[in-house]
Amino acid sequence: MSGSLLVDNIGELVTNGLGEGPLGIRRDAAVLVEDGRVAWVGAAAYAPAADRRLDADGAAVLPGFVDSHAHLVFAGDRAAEFAARMAGQPYTGGGIRTTVGATRAAGDDDLRATVRRLRGEALRQGTTTMEIKSGYGLTVADEARSLRIAAETSTETTFLGAHVVPAEYADRPDDYVGLVCGPMLAAAAPHAKWIDVFCERGAFDVDHARAILACGQAVGLGVRLHANQLGPGPGVQLGVELGAASVDHCTYLSDADIDALAGAHTTTVATLLPGAEFSTRSPYPDARRLLDAGVTVALATDCNPGSSYTSSMPFCVALAVREMRMTPAEAVWAATAGGARALRRDDIGVLTPGARADLVVLDAPSYLHLAYRPGVPLIRQVIRNGVPQ
Amino acid sequence: MSGSLLVDNIGELVTNGLGEGPLGIRRDAAVLVEDGRVAWVGAAAYAPAADRRLDADGAAVLPGFVDSHAHLVFAGDRAAEFAARMAGQPYTGGGIRTTVGATRAAGDDDLRATVRRLRGEALRQGTTTMEIKSGYGLTVADEARSLRIAAETSTETTFLGAHVVPAEYADRPDDYVGLVCGPMLAAAAPHAKWIDVFCERGAFDVDHARAILACGQAVGLGVRLHANQLGPGPGVQLGVELGAASVDHCTYLSDADIDALAGAHTTTVATLLPGAEFSTRSPYPDARRLLDAGVTVALATDCNPGSSYTSSMPFCVALAVREMRMTPAEAVWAATAGGARALRRDDIGVLTPGARADLVVLDAPSYLHLAYRPGVPLIRQVIRNGVPQ
Ligand SMILES: [Zn+2]
Ligand SMILES: [Zn+2]
Repeated sequence: MSGSLLVDNIGELVTNGLGEGPLGIRRDAAVLVEDGRVAWVGAAAYAPAADRRLDADGAAVLPGFVDSHAHLVFAGDRAAEFAARMAGQPYTGGGIRTTVGATRAAGDDDLRATVRRLRGEALRQGTTTMEIKSGYGLTVADEARSLRIAAETSTETTFLGAHVVPAEYADRPDDYVGLVCGPMLAAAAPHAKWIDVFCERGAFDVDHARAILACGQAVGLGVRLHANQLGPGPGVQLGVELGAASVDHCTYLSDADIDALAGAHTTTVATLLPGAEFSTRSPYPDARRLLDAGVTVALATDCNPGSSYTSSMPFCVALAVREMRMTPAEAVWAATAGGARALRRDDIGVLTPGARADLVVLDAPSYLHLAYRPGVPLIRQVIRNGVPQ
Repeated sequence: MSGSLLVDNIGELVTNGLGEGPLGIRRDAAVLVEDGRVAWVGAAAYAPAADRRLDADGAAVLPGFVDSHAHLVFAGDRAAEFAARMAGQPYTGGGIRTTVGATRAAGDDDLRATVRRLRGEALRQGTTTMEIKSGYGLTVADEARSLRIAAETSTETTFLGAHVVPAEYADRPDDYVGLVCGPMLAAAAPHAKWIDVFCERGAFDVDHARAILACGQAVGLGVRLHANQLGPGPGVQLGVELGAASVDHCTYLSDADIDALAGAHTTTVATLLPGAEFSTRSPYPDARRLLDAGVTVALATDCNPGSSYTSSMPFCVALAVREMRMTPAEAVWAATAGGARALRRDDIGVLTPGARADLVVLDAPSYLHLAYRPGVPLIRQVIRNGVPQ
């Protein structure tokens, strides 16, 4: 769609730039969109002329959500496993292999349909950027096709061949690490921007994780990792050591982990995934401790069929406020600008001139309602790349 | 809309009647709707002819949600109070008077617009029946107009003049009880089906509650009450004594309270409102203890601008499973058939021949997804009174 668009009559505009408070709020504002970018932000009374106008009717407008952690390329679901876990069976992560079996058996079109369905669902809930990981293929061919399919939908694609050691390598994990670093990485890298490892007891230890991430860096992939979700461990400090863009989960942290993250706050983001704690009935990460120490925090969904089958960033914001004692402003920043930092992007997560024109108009007068009205679909309109969806 | 409608190709039909398990599930089913009623339920292969057909495409179909506890007639919002509470200030219920002031100052059309907006929002989330309480007017005229406006939208209207003692009666609560039982009840009763009292320390004590509820019963209103939300008390047993259709909240219960509710399980429902505990960061009621004792349990939203500003029954189902250890089946039953019991209705909350044709088609193959996919808008289609919305 060409021509300029004026989003006008915005009661409360969250810019994450200049303005009131940590969210850079402007009142009675307008945003001019041209060529998919924010061309102007200012007081509605001084808004320039435009080809078209979208009347926000006094509602709140935010940058689109940036979901920096999602596993969308899979087949099947695990609703029965979920119900069993809610009845008292603990979550061990072993269920990933169920999804690996289903994913390998699925056709490309099945996988593509699931990615598109979930990406569309998230878009309707205000997510304008969504990272997508592989990690349910775990063969050279299945990881490559997972990333090829992911890349049809997102530029933020992540090679997660090191999600879990597949059953056929259970007694020779070193061989699997060799496969990941060798032919699997070679086949995956052309379709990936990032490399990720599930660094956890029962998955990959710190030496394997370091080796895999270093191989990825050597071919130009950025580093991110799953760490310290199920127990304490060296993953977070490995991430800081390697200059990871993000270490994700961060539920079990030592003082030294916090210090490392705080020292790296301009480099490495701590991405919290409260949907996973909700759906596995686990203790939530201590967001306040991270924020008070000066760590940069992002929120993401961890959307996946095992431990967090939500695609809803508004739900994660509400959980962050209820369960992790983030303020509504901290949670909204983490779900927008924080996600952008976790993807090393400065063109999204903000509404300032030059940024990508990714906006959501709420069915509410304030961003506060995302936490104040939990579970309610509050996304009235999404604009992505300047285009009303 | 006239003519018959066949909802066909239903992968999983929750009937709450005859069928598999506590939800009376039928697979590969169809439902024939005629004149706003369910005319036939059976295997899709044997479905009768109909004027129109709605293809559920293998999805799950449930009875519409019955939200038996909502406060929709008010003006203003309390987002700032919410944010302050999340930052550590405890919830005392004192904020109700803020809403009373705003409601009294509002015009009829303002109140009507809020009721319709929230009722529409709930309908899009699958709520086909919604109880609506007064309780933010607290004058004869303001309670009467609140119920008149509520009755435009629901037949399940509840007179809650005894929500809180208004500021102008703070030092003479007996006089306020006299007003509620006298002229206020007389003005409210023509528009109300139910009477309700907030029986809690700081609101109405058990003697006042008994007097008010007895006056309502004398003019033909059914009894329900708010009880044992903020601390232990005599409210629950008062409800059982009076044959209340429902006692709502039930967070702080003694063994005697549980025994009373179990003994009254065909008469009095315990309605749990986990949205209130979510939004006030309070301990959740012990649903397992109630269910294991044989108490009939319903789930409702408590939608109100102070302590639970959600209109989402799917969100309440997800919370019930995560936080109150209800199984997904128990939670779905409580949100449909349980709500119907709490309103003494046998024509809703079930999908059996003769029931009202209130159905929701999920964007999911199973009711399990309501808990498995928290926060995700999963309502694909709502049919109310036989009419697709
Ligand atoms: Zn993950
Ligand atoms: Zn209430």
